[in-house]
Amino acid sequence: MEVLEQIYEGKAKKVFATDHPDYYLVRYKDDATAFNGEKRGTIKGKGEINNRMSNLLFQYLAKNGVPNHFVEEVSACETLVRRVEIIPLEVVVRNLAAGSMAKRLGLVEGTHLDEPIVEFYYKDDALGDPLVTEDHIRVLHIATPQDVEELRNRALEVNRLLLAQFLQLGVQLVDFKLEFGFAEDGQILLADEISPDTCRFWDIETGEKLDKDRFRRDLGGVEEAYQEMLRRLLTGGAQS
Amino acid sequence: MEVLEQIYEGKAKKVFATDHPDYYLVRYKDDATAFNGEKRGTIKGKGEINNRMSNLLFQYLAKNGVPNHFVEEVSACETLVRRVEIIPLEVVVRNLAAGSMAKRLGLVEGTHLDEPIVEFYYKDDALGDPLVTEDHIRVLHIATPQDVEELRNRALEVNRLLLAQFLQLGVQLVDFKLEFGFAEDGQILLADEISPDTCRFWDIETGEKLDKDRFRRDLGGVEEAYQEMLRRLLTGGAQS
Ligand SMILES: Nc1ncnc2c1ncn2[C@@H]1O[C@H](COP(=O)(O)OP(=O)(O)OP(=O)(O)O)[C@@H](O)[C@H]1O
Ligand SMILES: Nc1ncnc2c1ncn2[C@@H]1O[C@H](COP(=O)(O)OP(=O)(O)OP(=O)(O)O)[C@@H](O)[C@H]1O
Ligand SMILES: [Mg+2]
Ligand SMILES: [Mg+2]
Repeated sequence: MEVLEQIYEGKAKKVFATDHPDYYLVRYKDDATAFNGEKRGTIKGKGEINNRMSNLLFQYLAKNGVPNHFVEEVSACETLVRRVEIIPLEVVVRNLAAGSMAKRLGLVEGTHLDEPIVEFYYKDDALGDPLVTEDHIRVLHIATPQDVEELRNRALEVNRLLLAQFLQLGVQLVDFKLEFGFAEDGQILLADEISPDTCRFWDIETGEKLDKDRFRRDLGGVEEAYQEMLRRLLTGGAQS
Repeated sequence: MEVLEQIYEGKAKKVFATDHPDYYLVRYKDDATAFNGEKRGTIKGKGEINNRMSNLLFQYLAKNGVPNHFVEEVSACETLVRRVEIIPLEVVVRNLAAGSMAKRLGLVEGTHLDEPIVEFYYKDDALGDPLVTEDHIRVLHIATPQDVEELRNRALEVNRLLLAQFLQLGVQLVDFKLEFGFAEDGQILLADEISPDTCRFWDIETGEKLDKDRFRRDLGGVEEAYQEMLRRLLTGGAQS
Protein backbone atom coordinates (compact mmCIF):
# COMPACT_ATOMS: atom_id res chain seq x y z
CA MET A 1 0.00 0.00 0.00
CA GLU A 2 1.37 3.35 -1.05
CA VAL A 3 0.44 6.67 0.55
CA LEU A 4 -0.36 9.34 -2.01
CA GLU A 5 -1.40 13.01 -1.76
CA GLN A 6 -2.94 14.63 1.31
CA ILE A 7 -6.68 14.98 0.86
CA TYR A 8 -7.47 17.03 3.94
CA GLU A 9 -5.85 18.41 7.06
CA GLY A 10 -8.31 18.76 9.91
CA LYS A 11 -7.80 19.94 13.45
CA ALA A 12 -6.93 16.47 14.79
CA LYS A 13 -6.04 14.34 11.78
CA LYS A 14 -4.61 14.36 8.28
CA VAL A 15 -6.22 12.26 5.59
CA PHE A 16 -4.24 10.84 2.64
CA ALA A 17 -5.20 9.06 -0.53
CA THR A 18 -3.59 5.67 -1.13
CA ASP A 19 -3.02 3.55 -4.21
CA HIS A 20 -6.23 1.69 -3.33
CA PRO A 21 -9.15 3.84 -4.51
CA ASP A 22 -11.40 2.72 -1.64
CA TYR A 23 -8.89 3.33 1.17
CA TYR A 24 -7.61 6.43 2.90
CA LEU A 25 -4.77 6.67 5.37
CA VAL A 26 -5.59 8.69 8.49
CA ARG A 27 -2.73 10.21 10.51
CA TYR A 28 -3.68 11.32 14.02
CA LYS A 29 -2.01 14.49 15.35
CA ASP A 30 -1.19 15.74 18.85
CA ASP A 31 -2.88 19.08 18.04
CA ALA A 32 -5.83 19.93 20.21
CA THR A 33 -8.45 22.59 19.61
CA ALA A 34 -11.64 23.52 21.43
CA PHE A 35 -14.57 25.90 21.06
CA ASN A 36 -14.59 25.64 17.28
CA GLY A 37 -10.88 26.34 17.00
CA GLU A 38 -10.72 29.33 19.38
CA LYS A 39 -8.53 27.50 21.88
CA ARG A 40 -5.47 25.71 20.53
CA GLY A 41 -2.74 23.57 22.03
CA THR A 42 -0.91 20.26 21.93
CA ILE A 43 -1.56 17.12 23.94
CA LYS A 44 1.62 15.05 23.89
CA GLY A 45 0.97 11.47 22.84
CA LYS A 46 -2.66 12.17 21.86
CA GLY A 47 -2.16 11.13 18.24
CA GLU A 48 -1.01 7.66 19.21
CA ILE A 49 -3.58 7.22 21.97
CA ASN A 50 -6.53 8.32 19.84
CA ASN A 51 -5.38 6.14 16.97
CA ARG A 52 -5.01 3.03 19.12
CA MET A 53 -8.14 3.65 21.13
CA SER A 54 -10.30 4.36 18.08
CA ASN A 55 -9.02 1.19 16.45
CA LEU A 56 -9.71 -0.97 19.50
CA LEU A 57 -13.23 0.43 19.68
CA PHE A 58 -13.89 0.17 15.95
CA GLN A 59 -12.84 -3.51 16.06
CA TYR A 60 -15.07 -4.14 19.08
CA LEU A 61 -17.99 -2.46 17.29
CA ALA A 62 -17.40 -4.37 14.05
CA LYS A 63 -17.42 -7.69 15.95
CA ASN A 64 -20.72 -6.59 17.45
CA GLY A 65 -22.37 -5.79 14.16
CA VAL A 66 -21.68 -2.09 13.69
CA PRO A 67 -20.03 -1.66 10.27
CA ASN A 68 -17.28 0.96 10.29
CA HIS A 69 -14.35 2.32 8.32
CA PHE A 70 -11.51 0.54 10.18
CA VAL A 71 -9.26 -1.56 7.95
CA GLU A 72 -5.80 -1.86 9.50
CA GLU A 73 -3.52 -0.03 11.90
CA VAL A 74 -0.37 0.76 9.94
CA SER A 75 1.71 2.61 12.54
CA ALA A 76 1.41 4.15 16.01
CA CYS A 77 -0.61 7.07 14.71
CA GLU A 78 -1.68 5.91 11.26
CA THR A 79 -4.58 3.76 10.17
CA LEU A 80 -5.94 2.56 6.90
CA VAL A 81 -9.69 3.18 6.63
CA ARG A 82 -12.45 2.72 4.09
CA ARG A 83 -12.96 5.97 2.23
CA VAL A 84 -16.44 7.31 2.75
CA GLU A 85 -18.35 10.38 1.72
CA ILE A 86 -18.93 11.93 5.12
CA ILE A 87 -22.56 12.84 5.85
CA PRO A 88 -22.19 16.42 7.14
CA LEU A 89 -23.78 15.72 10.52
CA GLU A 90 -22.15 15.32 13.90
CA VAL A 91 -24.27 12.66 15.56
CA VAL A 92 -24.13 13.15 19.33
CA VAL A 93 -25.45 10.64 21.86
CA ARG A 94 -25.93 11.71 25.46
CA ASN A 95 -26.56 9.62 28.58
CA LEU A 96 -26.06 12.49 31.04
CA ALA A 97 -26.42 16.22 30.41
CA ALA A 98 -23.01 17.89 30.10
CA GLY A 99 -21.19 20.49 28.04
CA SER A 100 -23.25 22.47 25.58
CA MET A 101 -26.48 20.62 26.33
CA ALA A 102 -26.29 21.39 30.06
CA LYS A 103 -25.49 25.02 29.31
CA ARG A 104 -28.12 25.58 26.62
CA LEU A 105 -30.92 23.94 28.57
CA GLY A 106 -29.99 25.11 32.07
CA LEU A 107 -29.27 21.64 33.46
CA VAL A 108 -26.73 20.82 36.13
CA GLU A 109 -23.84 18.97 34.51
CA GLY A 110 -24.30 15.29 35.24
CA THR A 111 -28.11 15.37 35.24
CA HIS A 112 -29.22 11.85 34.39
CA LEU A 113 -31.43 11.57 31.31
CA ASP A 114 -34.33 9.09 31.43
CA GLU A 115 -33.07 7.61 28.22
CA PRO A 116 -30.19 8.35 25.87
CA ILE A 117 -30.85 11.13 23.39
CA VAL A 118 -29.46 11.71 19.92
CA GLU A 119 -28.65 15.18 18.59
CA PHE A 120 -27.58 16.20 15.11
CA TYR A 121 -25.26 19.13 14.43
CA TYR A 122 -24.73 20.41 10.91
CA LYS A 123 -20.97 20.06 10.16
CA ASP A 124 -20.16 23.56 8.97
CA ASP A 125 -17.28 25.34 10.69
CA ALA A 126 -18.30 28.76 9.36
CA LEU A 127 -21.72 28.36 10.99
CA GLY A 128 -20.24 26.91 14.19
CA ASP A 129 -21.81 23.46 13.68
CA PRO A 130 -25.39 24.46 14.61
CA LEU A 131 -27.84 22.05 16.21
CA VAL A 132 -30.38 20.93 13.61
CA THR A 133 -33.72 19.20 13.87
CA GLU A 134 -34.92 16.45 11.57
CA ASP A 135 -37.02 19.06 9.75
CA HIS A 136 -33.90 21.16 9.07
CA ILE A 137 -31.97 18.11 7.85
CA ARG A 138 -34.79 17.30 5.45
CA VAL A 139 -35.40 20.75 3.97
CA LEU A 140 -31.67 21.46 3.67
CA HIS A 141 -31.28 18.09 1.90
CA ILE A 142 -28.47 17.15 4.29
CA ALA A 143 -29.81 13.61 4.53
CA THR A 144 -33.07 11.80 3.85
CA PRO A 145 -35.46 11.01 6.73
CA GLN A 146 -34.66 7.31 6.20
CA ASP A 147 -30.94 7.95 6.54
CA VAL A 148 -31.51 10.07 9.64
CA GLU A 149 -33.51 7.21 11.16
CA GLU A 150 -30.68 4.84 10.29
CA LEU A 151 -28.07 7.16 11.84
CA ARG A 152 -30.15 7.46 15.00
CA ASN A 153 -30.48 3.69 15.33
CA ARG A 154 -26.80 3.08 14.64
CA ALA A 155 -25.78 5.76 17.14
CA LEU A 156 -28.00 4.26 19.84
CA GLU A 157 -26.59 0.80 19.13
CA VAL A 158 -23.03 2.17 19.42
CA ASN A 159 -24.09 3.74 22.71
CA ARG A 160 -25.40 0.43 24.09
CA LEU A 161 -22.17 -1.32 23.15
CA LEU A 162 -19.83 1.40 24.39
CA LEU A 163 -21.76 2.04 27.62
CA ALA A 164 -21.38 -1.65 28.55
CA GLN A 165 -17.72 -1.73 27.53
CA PHE A 166 -16.75 1.37 29.51
CA LEU A 167 -18.80 0.37 32.54
CA GLN A 168 -16.54 -2.69 32.84
CA LEU A 169 -13.58 -0.31 32.85
CA GLY A 170 -15.01 1.80 35.64
CA VAL A 171 -15.95 4.62 33.28
CA GLN A 172 -19.26 6.40 32.80
CA LEU A 173 -19.73 7.22 29.14
CA VAL A 174 -21.41 10.63 29.43
CA ASP A 175 -21.73 11.56 25.75
CA PHE A 176 -19.91 11.23 22.44
CA LYS A 177 -19.90 12.43 18.83
CA LEU A 178 -19.94 10.14 15.81
CA GLU A 179 -19.56 10.73 12.09
CA PHE A 180 -20.92 8.45 9.41
CA GLY A 181 -20.45 8.29 5.67
CA PHE A 182 -21.40 6.44 2.52
CA ALA A 183 -18.90 3.86 1.28
CA GLU A 184 -18.39 3.28 -2.45
CA ASP A 185 -21.03 0.53 -2.32
CA GLY A 186 -23.64 2.90 -0.84
CA GLN A 187 -23.44 1.32 2.60
CA ILE A 188 -23.47 3.68 5.59
CA LEU A 189 -20.29 3.18 7.68
CA LEU A 190 -19.34 4.63 11.03
CA ALA A 191 -16.17 6.66 10.40
CA ASP A 192 -13.86 9.30 11.92
CA GLU A 193 -12.69 8.48 15.48
CA ILE A 194 -13.84 7.47 18.97
CA SER A 195 -11.46 8.88 21.55
CA PRO A 196 -11.17 11.22 24.54
CA ASP A 197 -11.36 14.03 21.95
CA THR A 198 -14.87 12.97 20.95
CA CYS A 199 -16.29 11.38 24.11
CA ARG A 200 -16.87 12.47 27.68
CA PHE A 201 -15.55 9.85 30.11
CA TRP A 202 -16.05 10.16 33.88
CA ASP A 203 -14.47 7.79 36.38
CA ILE A 204 -17.36 5.95 38.00
CA GLU A 205 -15.86 6.02 41.52
CA THR A 206 -14.36 9.50 41.68
CA GLY A 207 -16.22 11.38 38.94
CA GLU A 208 -12.84 12.47 37.59
CA LYS A 209 -12.93 13.64 33.98
CA LEU A 210 -10.81 11.48 31.65
CA ASP A 211 -11.29 13.33 28.37
CA LYS A 212 -10.77 16.55 26.44
CA ASP A 213 -12.69 18.60 29.01
CA ARG A 214 -9.41 18.58 31.00
CA PHE A 215 -7.94 20.56 28.09
CA ARG A 216 -11.04 22.67 27.36
CA ARG A 217 -11.38 23.70 31.01
CA ASP A 218 -7.67 23.88 31.95
CA LEU A 219 -7.99 21.15 34.57
CA GLY A 220 -4.43 19.86 34.20
CA GLY A 221 -3.44 16.21 33.90
CA VAL A 222 -4.55 16.13 30.27
CA GLU A 223 -1.95 13.68 28.93
CA GLU A 224 -2.40 11.45 32.01
CA ALA A 225 -6.15 11.25 31.44
CA TYR A 226 -5.71 10.15 27.80
CA GLN A 227 -3.09 7.59 28.89
CA GLU A 228 -5.34 6.28 31.66
CA MET A 229 -8.21 5.72 29.24
CA LEU A 230 -6.02 3.75 26.84
CA ARG A 231 -4.53 1.77 29.75
CA ARG A 232 -7.97 0.75 30.95
CA LEU A 233 -9.04 -0.29 27.47
CA LEU A 234 -5.88 -2.36 26.95
CA THR A 235 -6.08 -4.11 30.32
CA GLY A 236 -9.88 -4.36 30.45
CA GLY A 237 -10.04 -5.88 27.00
CA ALA A 238 -11.95 -3.99 24.33
CA GLN A 239 -11.57 -7.07 22.17
CA SER A 240 -14.40 -8.91 23.89
CA MET B 1 -67.44 40.29 34.03
CA GLU B 2 -65.15 41.90 36.59
CA VAL B 3 -61.41 42.36 36.08
CA LEU B 4 -59.40 41.29 39.13
CA GLU B 5 -55.68 41.24 39.92
CA GLN B 6 -52.90 41.30 37.34
CA ILE B 7 -51.48 37.79 36.86
CA TYR B 8 -48.54 38.64 34.63
CA GLU B 9 -46.99 41.52 32.76
CA GLY B 10 -45.11 40.39 29.69
CA LYS B 11 -43.25 42.37 27.09
CA ALA B 12 -46.31 42.87 24.87
CA LYS B 13 -49.35 42.15 27.04
CA LYS B 14 -50.74 42.21 30.56
CA VAL B 15 -52.85 39.33 31.78
CA PHE B 16 -55.56 39.78 34.43
CA ALA B 17 -57.70 37.38 36.40
CA THR B 18 -61.47 37.88 36.15
CA ASP B 19 -64.40 36.84 38.29
CA HIS B 20 -64.81 33.84 35.99
CA PRO B 21 -62.21 31.23 37.04
CA ASP B 22 -61.75 29.96 33.47
CA TYR B 23 -61.26 33.38 31.84
CA TYR B 24 -58.41 35.84 31.74
CA LEU B 25 -58.44 39.36 30.36
CA VAL B 26 -55.52 40.17 28.08
CA ARG B 27 -54.52 43.82 27.58
CA TYR B 28 -52.28 44.46 24.59
CA LYS B 29 -49.59 47.14 24.97
CA ASP B 30 -47.77 49.41 22.53
CA ASP B 31 -44.40 48.30 24.01
CA ALA B 32 -42.09 46.59 21.57
CA THR B 33 -38.98 44.57 22.37
CA ALA B 34 -36.63 42.53 20.24
CA PHE B 35 -33.62 40.26 20.63
CA ASN B 36 -34.86 38.82 23.92
CA GLY B 37 -35.50 42.27 25.42
CA GLU B 38 -32.20 43.89 24.40
CA LYS B 39 -33.90 46.39 22.08
CA ARG B 40 -36.88 48.30 23.45
CA GLY B 41 -39.29 50.82 22.07
CA THR B 42 -42.92 51.74 21.46
CA ILE B 43 -45.02 51.19 18.37
CA LYS B 44 -47.95 53.61 18.52
CA GLY B 45 -51.27 51.85 18.01
CA LYS B 46 -49.73 48.37 18.14
CA GLY B 47 -51.80 47.29 21.15
CA GLU B 48 -55.08 47.93 19.33
CA ILE B 49 -53.90 46.50 16.02
CA ASN B 50 -52.52 43.30 17.53
CA ASN B 51 -55.64 42.85 19.63
CA ARG B 52 -58.00 43.27 16.70
CA MET B 53 -55.89 41.29 14.28
CA SER B 54 -55.38 38.38 16.70
CA ASN B 55 -59.08 38.28 17.35
CA LEU B 56 -60.01 38.27 13.66
CA LEU B 57 -57.55 35.43 13.06
CA PHE B 58 -58.59 33.45 16.13
CA GLN B 59 -62.22 33.64 14.99
CA TYR B 60 -61.27 32.56 11.47
CA LEU B 61 -59.27 29.63 12.89
CA ALA B 62 -62.06 28.60 15.28
CA LYS B 63 -64.54 28.53 12.38
CA ASN B 64 -62.11 26.30 10.54
CA GLY B 65 -61.72 23.80 13.34
CA VAL B 66 -58.71 25.08 15.27
CA PRO B 67 -59.76 25.44 18.93
CA ASN B 68 -58.28 28.53 20.56
CA HIS B 69 -58.51 30.77 23.58
CA PHE B 70 -60.55 33.62 22.06
CA VAL B 71 -63.78 34.41 23.91
CA GLU B 72 -64.73 38.05 23.35
CA GLU B 73 -63.19 41.37 22.46
CA VAL B 74 -64.02 43.73 25.33
CA SER B 75 -62.30 46.92 24.22
CA ALA B 76 -59.88 48.23 21.59
CA CYS B 77 -56.93 46.56 23.27
CA GLU B 78 -58.56 44.09 25.65
CA THR B 79 -59.88 40.61 25.06
CA LEU B 80 -61.41 37.94 27.21
CA VAL B 81 -59.70 34.58 26.67
CA ARG B 82 -59.92 31.06 28.05
CA ARG B 83 -57.29 30.65 30.75
CA VAL B 84 -54.80 27.96 29.80
CA GLU B 85 -51.68 26.55 31.33
CA ILE B 86 -49.17 27.54 28.69
CA ILE B 87 -46.97 24.71 27.39
CA PRO B 88 -43.49 26.29 27.61
CA LEU B 89 -42.73 25.91 23.91
CA GLU B 90 -42.71 28.51 21.18
CA VAL B 91 -43.99 26.61 18.18
CA VAL B 92 -42.57 28.19 15.02
CA VAL B 93 -43.76 27.34 11.51
CA ARG B 94 -41.66 28.44 8.54
CA ASN B 95 -42.53 28.53 4.84
CA LEU B 96 -39.42 30.48 3.80
CA ALA B 97 -36.09 30.75 5.60
CA ALA B 98 -35.77 34.10 7.39
CA GLY B 99 -34.54 35.57 10.64
CA SER B 100 -32.74 33.25 13.01
CA MET B 101 -33.17 30.19 10.80
CA ALA B 102 -31.53 31.85 7.80
CA LYS B 103 -28.70 33.10 9.98
CA ARG B 104 -28.06 29.86 11.89
CA LEU B 105 -28.12 27.67 8.81
CA GLY B 106 -26.43 30.03 6.37
CA LEU B 107 -29.44 30.44 4.06
CA VAL B 108 -30.29 33.52 2.05
CA GLU B 109 -33.33 35.15 3.59
CA GLY B 110 -36.34 34.18 1.50
CA THR B 111 -35.03 30.76 0.51
CA HIS B 112 -38.09 28.67 -0.29
CA LEU B 113 -38.47 25.50 1.79
CA ASP B 114 -39.74 22.37 0.02
CA GLU B 115 -42.36 22.03 2.70
CA PRO B 116 -43.25 23.99 5.83
CA ILE B 117 -41.15 23.10 8.88
CA VAL B 118 -42.01 23.25 12.56
CA GLU B 119 -39.48 24.26 15.20
CA PHE B 120 -39.83 24.21 18.97
CA TYR B 121 -38.11 26.71 21.25
CA TYR B 122 -38.06 26.21 24.99
CA LYS B 123 -39.78 29.27 26.53
CA ASP B 124 -37.17 30.34 29.08
CA ASP B 125 -36.03 33.96 28.95
CA ALA B 126 -32.94 33.29 31.10
CA LEU B 127 -31.77 30.69 28.58
CA GLY B 128 -32.72 32.87 25.59
CA ASP B 129 -35.47 30.51 24.38
CA PRO B 130 -33.17 27.81 22.96
CA LEU B 131 -34.15 25.63 20.00
CA VAL B 132 -35.04 22.16 21.25
CA THR B 133 -35.45 18.83 19.51
CA GLU B 134 -38.18 16.32 20.28
CA ASP B 135 -35.60 14.34 22.28
CA HIS B 136 -34.90 17.38 24.46
CA ILE B 137 -38.61 18.03 24.97
CA ARG B 138 -39.09 14.43 26.08
CA VAL B 139 -36.14 14.10 28.48
CA LEU B 140 -36.77 17.53 29.99
CA HIS B 141 -40.43 16.53 30.47
CA ILE B 142 -41.55 19.74 28.75
CA ALA B 143 -44.28 17.82 26.92
CA THR B 144 -45.06 14.24 26.00
CA PRO B 145 -44.23 12.94 22.52
CA GLN B 146 -47.98 12.65 21.88
CA ASP B 147 -48.52 16.30 22.79
CA VAL B 148 -45.57 17.35 20.61
CA GLU B 149 -47.11 15.46 17.69
CA GLU B 150 -50.42 17.19 18.39
CA LEU B 151 -48.73 20.63 18.52
CA ARG B 152 -46.95 19.93 15.26
CA ASN B 153 -50.18 18.94 13.51
CA ARG B 154 -52.10 21.88 14.89
CA ALA B 155 -49.33 24.28 13.90
CA LEU B 156 -49.25 22.92 10.34
CA GLU B 157 -53.04 23.20 10.12
CA VAL B 158 -52.87 26.82 11.31
CA ASN B 159 -50.23 27.38 8.64
CA ARG B 160 -52.44 25.97 5.87
CA LEU B 161 -55.32 28.18 6.95
CA LEU B 162 -53.28 31.36 7.44
CA LEU B 163 -51.22 30.90 4.25
CA ALA B 164 -54.44 30.76 2.22
CA GLN B 165 -55.96 33.70 4.08
CA PHE B 166 -52.93 35.97 3.67
CA LEU B 167 -52.37 34.97 0.07
CA GLN B 168 -55.80 36.47 -0.69
CA LEU B 169 -54.59 39.68 0.95
CA GLY B 170 -51.45 39.82 -1.20
CA VAL B 171 -49.24 38.76 1.67
CA GLN B 172 -46.67 35.96 1.84
CA LEU B 173 -46.76 34.40 5.30
CA VAL B 174 -43.05 33.71 5.82
CA ASP B 175 -43.08 32.31 9.35
CA PHE B 176 -44.85 32.70 12.68
CA LYS B 177 -44.74 31.69 16.33
CA LEU B 178 -47.60 30.07 18.21
CA GLU B 179 -48.19 29.22 21.85
CA PHE B 180 -50.54 26.53 23.07
CA GLY B 181 -51.83 25.57 26.50
CA PHE B 182 -54.04 23.18 28.39
CA ALA B 183 -57.53 24.44 29.24
CA GLU B 184 -59.19 23.45 32.52
CA ASP B 185 -60.81 20.49 30.72
CA GLY B 186 -57.42 19.17 29.55
CA GLN B 187 -58.00 20.24 25.95
CA ILE B 188 -55.07 21.82 24.10
CA LEU B 189 -55.98 25.32 22.90
CA LEU B 190 -54.08 27.71 20.67
CA ALA B 191 -53.42 30.81 22.82
CA ASP B 192 -51.37 34.02 23.01
CA GLU B 193 -51.55 36.19 19.86
CA ILE B 194 -51.14 36.17 16.07
CA SER B 195 -49.95 39.55 14.89
CA PRO B 196 -47.13 41.40 13.12
CA ASP B 197 -45.21 40.91 16.40
CA THR B 198 -45.30 37.13 15.99
CA CYS B 199 -45.45 36.63 12.20
CA ARG B 200 -43.30 37.64 9.24
CA PHE B 201 -45.47 39.12 6.48
CA TRP B 202 -44.01 40.09 3.10
CA ASP B 203 -46.02 41.90 0.44
CA ILE B 204 -46.30 39.47 -2.45
CA GLU B 205 -45.80 42.12 -5.15
CA THR B 206 -43.07 44.29 -3.66
CA GLY B 207 -41.48 42.01 -1.04
CA GLU B 208 -41.96 44.83 1.48
CA LYS B 209 -41.83 43.70 5.09
CA LEU B 210 -45.09 44.32 6.95
CA ASP B 211 -44.14 43.10 10.42
CA LYS B 212 -41.91 43.59 13.46
CA ASP B 213 -38.74 43.21 11.38
CA ARG B 214 -39.29 46.90 10.47
CA PHE B 215 -38.74 47.65 14.18
CA ARG B 216 -36.00 45.03 14.76
CA ARG B 217 -33.98 46.25 11.79
CA ASP B 218 -34.77 49.99 12.01
CA LEU B 219 -36.43 50.03 8.58
CA GLY B 220 -38.87 52.85 9.41
CA GLY B 221 -42.59 52.84 8.64
CA VAL B 222 -43.27 50.53 11.54
CA GLU B 223 -46.69 51.88 12.56
CA GLU B 224 -47.74 52.08 8.90
CA ALA B 225 -46.88 48.42 8.33
CA TYR B 226 -48.98 47.30 11.29
CA GLN B 227 -51.87 49.51 10.11
CA GLU B 228 -51.59 48.17 6.57
CA MET B 229 -51.81 44.55 7.77
CA LEU B 230 -54.94 45.27 9.80
CA ARG B 231 -56.44 47.24 6.90
CA ARG B 232 -55.96 44.32 4.52
CA LEU B 233 -57.49 41.88 6.97
CA LEU B 234 -60.51 44.11 7.55
CA THR B 235 -61.13 44.76 3.85
CA GLY B 236 -60.12 41.30 2.64
CA GLY B 237 -62.36 39.59 5.14
CA ALA B 238 -60.76 37.29 7.70
CA GLN B 239 -64.26 36.23 8.61
CA SER B 240 -64.58 33.89 5.65
N1 LIG C 1 -13.36 7.10 6.46
C1 LIG C 1 -13.32 8.39 6.12
N2 LIG C 1 -13.41 8.78 4.84
C2 LIG C 1 -13.39 10.09 4.49
N3 LIG C 1 -13.28 11.10 5.38
C3 LIG C 1 -13.20 10.76 6.68
C4 LIG C 1 -13.22 9.42 7.12
N4 LIG C 1 -13.14 9.41 8.47
C5 LIG C 1 -13.07 10.70 8.85
N5 LIG C 1 -13.12 11.53 7.80
C6 LIG C 1 -13.04 13.00 7.77
O1 LIG C 1 -11.66 13.32 7.88
C7 LIG C 1 -11.48 14.51 8.61
C8 LIG C 1 -10.66 14.20 9.82
O2 LIG C 1 -9.99 15.30 10.25
P1 LIG C 1 -10.27 16.00 11.65
O3 LIG C 1 -11.01 15.12 12.59
O4 LIG C 1 -8.96 16.56 12.07
O5 LIG C 1 -11.28 17.11 11.13
P2 LIG C 1 -11.86 18.30 12.01
O6 LIG C 1 -10.83 19.32 12.28
O7 LIG C 1 -12.59 17.69 13.14
O8 LIG C 1 -12.81 19.02 11.02
P3 LIG C 1 -14.14 18.59 10.39
O9 LIG C 1 -14.53 17.25 10.98
O10 LIG C 1 -15.05 19.70 10.81
O11 LIG C 1 -13.86 18.52 8.92
C9 LIG C 1 -12.87 14.98 9.01
O12 LIG C 1 -13.34 15.93 8.07
C10 LIG C 1 -13.68 13.71 8.93
O13 LIG C 1 -15.04 14.00 8.68
N1 LIG D 1 -55.00 32.02 27.27
C1 LIG D 1 -53.92 32.23 28.02
N2 LIG D 1 -53.88 31.76 29.31
C2 LIG D 1 -52.77 31.95 30.07
N3 LIG D 1 -51.67 32.59 29.66
C3 LIG D 1 -51.66 33.07 28.41
C4 LIG D 1 -52.76 32.90 27.53
N4 LIG D 1 -52.43 33.47 26.34
C5 LIG D 1 -51.17 33.94 26.47
N5 LIG D 1 -50.69 33.72 27.72
C6 LIG D 1 -49.39 34.11 28.27
O1 LIG D 1 -49.52 35.46 28.66
C7 LIG D 1 -48.30 36.15 28.47
C8 LIG D 1 -48.54 37.25 27.49
O2 LIG D 1 -47.64 38.25 27.68
P1 LIG D 1 -46.54 38.66 26.61
O3 LIG D 1 -46.85 38.12 25.27
O4 LIG D 1 -46.33 40.10 26.79
O5 LIG D 1 -45.33 37.79 27.22
P2 LIG D 1 -43.84 37.84 26.72
O6 LIG D 1 -43.17 39.08 27.11
O7 LIG D 1 -43.85 37.44 25.28
O8 LIG D 1 -43.15 36.77 27.60
P3 LIG D 1 -43.27 35.24 27.66
O9 LIG D 1 -44.21 34.79 26.56
O10 LIG D 1 -41.87 34.80 27.43
O11 LIG D 1 -43.80 34.96 29.03
C9 LIG D 1 -47.31 35.13 27.93
O12 LIG D 1 -46.56 34.58 28.99
C10 LIG D 1 -48.23 34.09 27.31
O13 LIG D 1 -47.61 32.81 27.30
MG1 LIG E 1 -12.78 15.78 13.75
MG1 LIG F 1 -45.34 37.05 24.02
